[in-house]
Amino acid sequence: MYDGALQDLIDELGQLPGVGPKSAQRIAFYLLATERDQAERLAAAIRDMKDKVHFCEVCGNVAQSELCRICSDPRRSDDIICVVEEPKDVAAIERTREFRGRYHVLGGAIDPINGIGPQDLRIQDLMTRLTGADVTEVIIATDPNIEGEATAAYLARMLRSLDIPVSRLASGLPVGGDLEYADEVTLGRAFEGRRRL
Amino acid sequence: MYDGALQDLIDELGQLPGVGPKSAQRIAFYLLATERDQAERLAAAIRDMKDKVHFCEVCGNVAQSELCRICSDPRRSDDIICVVEEPKDVAAIERTREFRGRYHVLGGAIDPINGIGPQDLRIQDLMTRLTGADVTEVIIATDPNIEGEATAAYLARMLRSLDIPVSRLASGLPVGGDLEYADEVTLGRAFEGRRRL
Repeated sequence: MYDGALQDLIDELGQLPGVGPKSAQRIAFYLLATERDQAERLAAAIRDMKDKVHFCEVCGNVAQSELCRICSDPRRSDDIICVVEEPKDVAAIERTREFRGRYHVLGGAIDPINGIGPQDLRIQDLMTRLTGADVTEVIIATDPNIEGEATAAYLARMLRSLDIPVSRLASGLPVGGDLEYADEVTLGRAFEGRRRL
Repeated sequence: MYDGALQDLIDELGQLPGVGPKSAQRIAFYLLATERDQAERLAAAIRDMKDKVHFCEVCGNVAQSELCRICSDPRRSDDIICVVEEPKDVAAIERTREFRGRYHVLGGAIDPINGIGPQDLRIQDLMTRLTGADVTEVIIATDPNIEGEATAAYLARMLRSLDIPVSRLASGLPVGGDLEYADEVTLGRAFEGRRRL
């Protein structure tokens, strides 16, 4: 609908996740009206990120050098490894400030419908990393959905051979929520995992 | 939450309209995982658009040269000018293929709450453009909301002095809609603007 360069930008923006044709148009017009500086900063940030951000060689988290911020931090404990699906999950857990160990990022979850099997995830790397290491606990923090649960079950079975204690994050009622609005599965899990006071 | 370049990109993306912190993170991770080529194309498209796209000297629409695609098209009629708020409105009207005249883009609507008065819009340009020109009709196609209606009323008053017939797009029931779901104002307008069959 628009002339060359504007339509090209709308088309490129429209390929981003969660950006439909209307949003792409809205963003393009915003960038057209904004100061050159801001558009320039965005273009540079995209290139910079592609140049500089890699995945950590040890844990698979995002990193600006060989090791990520957490793997290169000497104050973190090597005893506990928390296994997550994605780098965003590392960020979410870091926000809680509850965990001072290391991470292992799988790069997804087992999802046969979309053709993702154990061999597509960094599971072999985890086994290699744990073999012979002084790890006292592996916490499996995959998502509490079908794929995440399947991955957790698979990992638990794999890790049994290494004789390292494995735990899974608790499922239950979200704090600040209303019991009556909880779905049945969550409420069922909350009963199952009830704790003595 | 993330290392340098990734967080910089998330921050820049978060400033775009309709992109919250969660979407910004999602888009950044998408760009991290995607092929270098696609990220490069997006960065280039932003710069290209800023370099190449300007506003048409005659009508204020987006343009890649002095005149926009419509103003430089000799097949369009000079007799009718359709006044709209934004370049996106030009695109919307062009999609109908109902209009073969020229446009005039105001660059917004009168909106005292946000401090936008007639002098902030391209109204003086419109008056200059119309003075002495052979125009048989001005169609006011500002949005059918408070600001658009106020702008239409203001323009109609201004144009009275030029003695050019002025019309306004019809308000009424949207085609394909349900009468019972129309709001009262729209239904009221549909009654007011009823046509003899």
